[in-house]
Amino acid sequence: MAYLCEIRSMTQFASPVSGAEQEEGLAFRPKFDSSGLITAVAVDHETGEVLMLAHMNAQALERTLATGTVHYWSRSRGKMWIKGETSGNTQTVVEVLTDCDQDAVVLRVRQEGVAAACHTGRVSCFYRKVIQGEDGSFVLEKDPRPARFDPSSVYGSQGDG
Amino acid sequence: MAYLCEIRSMTQFASPVSGAEQEEGLAFRPKFDSSGLITAVAVDHETGEVLMLAHMNAQALERTLATGTVHYWSRSRGKMWIKGETSGNTQTVVEVLTDCDQDAVVLRVRQEGVAAACHTGRVSCFYRKVIQGEDGSFVLEKDPRPARFDPSSVYGSQGDG
Repeated sequence: MAYLCEIRSMTQFASPVSGAEQEEGLAFRPKFDSSGLITAVAVDHETGEVLMLAHMNAQALERTLATGTVHYWSRSRGKMWIKGETSGNTQTVVEVLTDCDQDAVVLRVRQEGVAAACHTGRVSCFYRKVIQGEDGSFVLEKDPRPARFDPSSVYGSQGDG
Repeated sequence: MAYLCEIRSMTQFASPVSGAEQEEGLAFRPKFDSSGLITAVAVDHETGEVLMLAHMNAQALERTLATGTVHYWSRSRGKMWIKGETSGNTQTVVEVLTDCDQDAVVLRVRQEGVAAACHTGRVSCFYRKVIQGEDGSFVLEKDPRPARFDPSSVYGSQGDG
């Protein structure tokens, strides 16, 4: 019975529609792409800092909403993962927002552990700013804030958040 | 000559590489997907509010960086567009950030015009929160802030931002 409930809960989202009902309606109709994924942007609920951008399949989205702990779909590994399952730096949902056509979600989260979203040990994955170099080309400038953990000591050679 | 410069500027980004050079290097190596697109998240530079999520091809990214006015690629219309070209609600770049593997950018922007990112007239496209209804299903609750313009008077029947 628990198994049946689990299966049902994975498919409980209403199907997307087009036009005004999708944009102005109050039914949650997440619009997954041809790979079955929706884009998720995690932001710190207090500072508003964008922490990371990742993807969710229906199950990861449902598990995130049901448990309050953020789950993503790893495109490179082809499986669902709990953000921070290795590092301990999980993300707890404060609020989930969706956009006009419901093909993306913003996750306002509280970072747990050492509050580092990035597998490099940094607070946010967006730690480099694009600037124009002297020769006109675009180069990167790093956020001066130090990393919050040493990835090699947490993951060994393979980082997974 | 101007034409040649334009062509060159469209292809000036360095190619993505793998591993540490992509994640820790100071060369901007945007990693476009198999459709030639990168995901862009626009946030208000003052409030940090996430305004919209869209996509850019290399030309839209280059034009955004070169002009300071945000350009996106419309997947539905198959063309580059200047955000706000119809409504006047353009976005001016304050800062562009990229993430660890450089397959996404965060655009910290100043909203011009009436400061509405969404084609529905709202400040942000993320105007609905996902909440759990009494029957356990997930439903949406709207941001109570009023729209900043009437889309039908700006776009007629077809909104395009």
